[in-house]
Amino acid sequence: MSTTWDGLLLNASLATLDGDGYGAIEDGALGWKDGVLTFVGPRAALPGDAEARTDAVIDAGGGWITPGLIDCHTHLVFAGDRAHEFERRLEGASYEDIARAGGGIVSTVRAVRAADEDTLLAESLPRARALLRDGATTLEIKSGYGLDFDNERKMLRVARRVGEALGIDVRTTYLGAHALPPEFSGRADDYIDAVVDWLPRLRAEGLVDAVDAFCERIGFTPEQTRRVFEAARALDLPVKLHADQLSDLGGAALTAGFGGLSADHVEYTDDAAVRAMAAAGTVAVLLPGAFHCLRETQRPPIEAFRAHGVAMAVATDCNPGTAPLLSLPLAMSLACTHFRLTPEEALRGATVHAARALGLHDRGRLRAGLRADFVHWAIRRPAELCYWLGGDLARSVFVAGYPVGRQD
Amino acid sequence: MSTTWDGLLLNASLATLDGDGYGAIEDGALGWKDGVLTFVGPRAALPGDAEARTDAVIDAGGGWITPGLIDCHTHLVFAGDRAHEFERRLEGASYEDIARAGGGIVSTVRAVRAADEDTLLAESLPRARALLRDGATTLEIKSGYGLDFDNERKMLRVARRVGEALGIDVRTTYLGAHALPPEFSGRADDYIDAVVDWLPRLRAEGLVDAVDAFCERIGFTPEQTRRVFEAARALDLPVKLHADQLSDLGGAALTAGFGGLSADHVEYTDDAAVRAMAAAGTVAVLLPGAFHCLRETQRPPIEAFRAHGVAMAVATDCNPGTAPLLSLPLAMSLACTHFRLTPEEALRGATVHAARALGLHDRGRLRAGLRADFVHWAIRRPAELCYWLGGDLARSVFVAGYPVGRQD
Ligand SMILES: [Zn+2]
Ligand SMILES: [Zn+2]
Repeated sequence: MSTTWDGLLLNASLATLDGDGYGAIEDGALGWKDGVLTFVGPRAALPGDAEARTDAVIDAGGGWITPGLIDCHTHLVFAGDRAHEFERRLEGASYEDIARAGGGIVSTVRAVRAADEDTLLAESLPRARALLRDGATTLEIKSGYGLDFDNERKMLRVARRVGEALGIDVRTTYLGAHALPPEFSGRADDYIDAVVDWLPRLRAEGLVDAVDAFCERIGFTPEQTRRVFEAARALDLPVKLHADQLSDLGGAALTAGFGGLSADHVEYTDDAAVRAMAAAGTVAVLLPGAFHCLRETQRPPIEAFRAHGVAMAVATDCNPGTAPLLSLPLAMSLACTHFRLTPEEALRGATVHAARALGLHDRGRLRAGLRADFVHWAIRRPAELCYWLGGDLARSVFVAGYPVGRQD
Repeated sequence: MSTTWDGLLLNASLATLDGDGYGAIEDGALGWKDGVLTFVGPRAALPGDAEARTDAVIDAGGGWITPGLIDCHTHLVFAGDRAHEFERRLEGASYEDIARAGGGIVSTVRAVRAADEDTLLAESLPRARALLRDGATTLEIKSGYGLDFDNERKMLRVARRVGEALGIDVRTTYLGAHALPPEFSGRADDYIDAVVDWLPRLRAEGLVDAVDAFCERIGFTPEQTRRVFEAARALDLPVKLHADQLSDLGGAALTAGFGGLSADHVEYTDDAAVRAMAAAGTVAVLLPGAFHCLRETQRPPIEAFRAHGVAMAVATDCNPGTAPLLSLPLAMSLACTHFRLTPEEALRGATVHAARALGLHDRGRLRAGLRADFVHWAIRRPAELCYWLGGDLARSVFVAGYPVGRQD
């Protein structure tokens, strides 16, 4: 155990999420060096000379420390918004009215294609900043509004630049198979050929950490999804899937069959698929923001996930159409209210299990040897992270040992 | 029209809420002097020399200005929280289990009684600050967790101090008839005697702007409510009511009969009561946060309110038991999603109609002669205030012409 640190945080409780429950340590101490945690435990267990280096000591003044939150499913790189469509629907317009007026996902595709890279970055940064301000230190960001090589590439480049601009870690996911672009209308299989063709080129540029698709009646078929997954496997890229959100096409089971990182949404996933996920170690990523905004009533099979030991992650799904959601604690709260997760499950879902859904083994808990990504919250107990709706609970956010955000 | 100002804000659109729709003015100008708006209109209509006083000019750099939001129903002064109870319920505890363990409203009453005035203020301020940060410039705050003279008085004094500390306007509501304190168990009528007895004394100290009660099977009867209202009327104090939230006891109609400012919750209000509210000018205060947290399914009669011209306000109901909600835009979003309000109705509900629900005629719109309470939002269209869930949209908040909040 090192007795020198770059930082030593005292006078807060720790929710380590290591072991059972919250892994709570009252009157804890957190030390780090070179971006990695070197001490996680009770202050009383610190080496005798630990607090001598007073230049490195931070007095938290109470509250709780959790691992940095991990948002493992977002579409936050986009241009424009769909607030007008949201408003039109509430004024009584049908989905057909809106589609006829050029709304829906195609309007976001148009806006993304029209935006240059700097504009797309400028539009996306405030959303990433909002997530960071509420404690997210690792973000997954998907492509999927470009739908041609250059524009998918532009989105993925912007996703990387979001991470660089904010000093946080961004994991990119190639979601070329998100929707059928107008120029491929009626030729979905040809579009999948193109998606598969673009993948190695994007990967060669270091822009792809994982591969995703939208498997749904209004998206792509299981057979088309399988072709995308096979292309990923050929490049040793992990897969995940928008699966079983609106109907049961067997997407979660297909993903488990490929040893996928996660099946996401999973409202209609059946029991056999849950067992397949458990066997494959595929995480169920719950997205209560879309469920909320779409006023869905079919809950994911939470009890089956629990019974079979499928890890449940919670993410924002931040996107302009079905979940304009800019806070991971708010997603956690929605997961408790709509899906009846316990606050501990929700917090574990946005840390430990979210890390697993991204294939990351160096974060998600407070444990010596893991990244020094953590958040100091002005709360009296961890359940408050799910209890409050809104508010401004994060006092400071550290990524790899350095405070980030809150420049205002 | 004055051509001198303390401040002149340019380069933003205005949602004045004066007239139809949003009362939108693109490329607007907003001038104020001595805390009052002196110019609201298109920049092109400014007097020729208006922009000469460059020391007074603020360039908004785009975005929208709305009236300061008004939260017309909160219980934000309290001590402790009920996150543990929230957690226990999600872990499967019944309401009986929680009551047996000392939970429920009595636990908040205990915590409020145990806290001294400074502690109660310190616990309440962060909640008020969160509401302010999201654009609320006027807050209503109720008593109702003291339930004896000294502690009701303490709560109302703290409510006033919240306003002084933050430089915002707080309207206090006496809610002695919120719940039956343990020492009056089985003697509800005797407790109402006491509530009625305390009222003139609290009023004499300038602590009471309005009087409220909780009329419900688990609260007080219509007859007990009537006695509270009569005591208020004798002192010329306006009344409002927690009415028809869980069942129809005729609370909204009773309130209309007293010419009440508002009937709040109103999920079970019937058509005759809606007509009575319309005739009396009683505002329907919608509280979608409690509806959301309690997973209720009975929507208020929105269509009837529209048909009969009953003004609908939207508020947070910020309270530790049924709505730990710290953002008025989030309440507006919930009103759109759960109650199907249009974004314009929701915004009007948190400005024009909220002012009316508090009996305030000097705010709620952008209009020359009204208070210079306004918010500058980083949005492209007003509907975004209801569209995003979370985030940090308010750029600056002005109360009586001065910027407040965002000290961090
Ligand atoms: Zn998604
Ligand atoms: Zn209330």
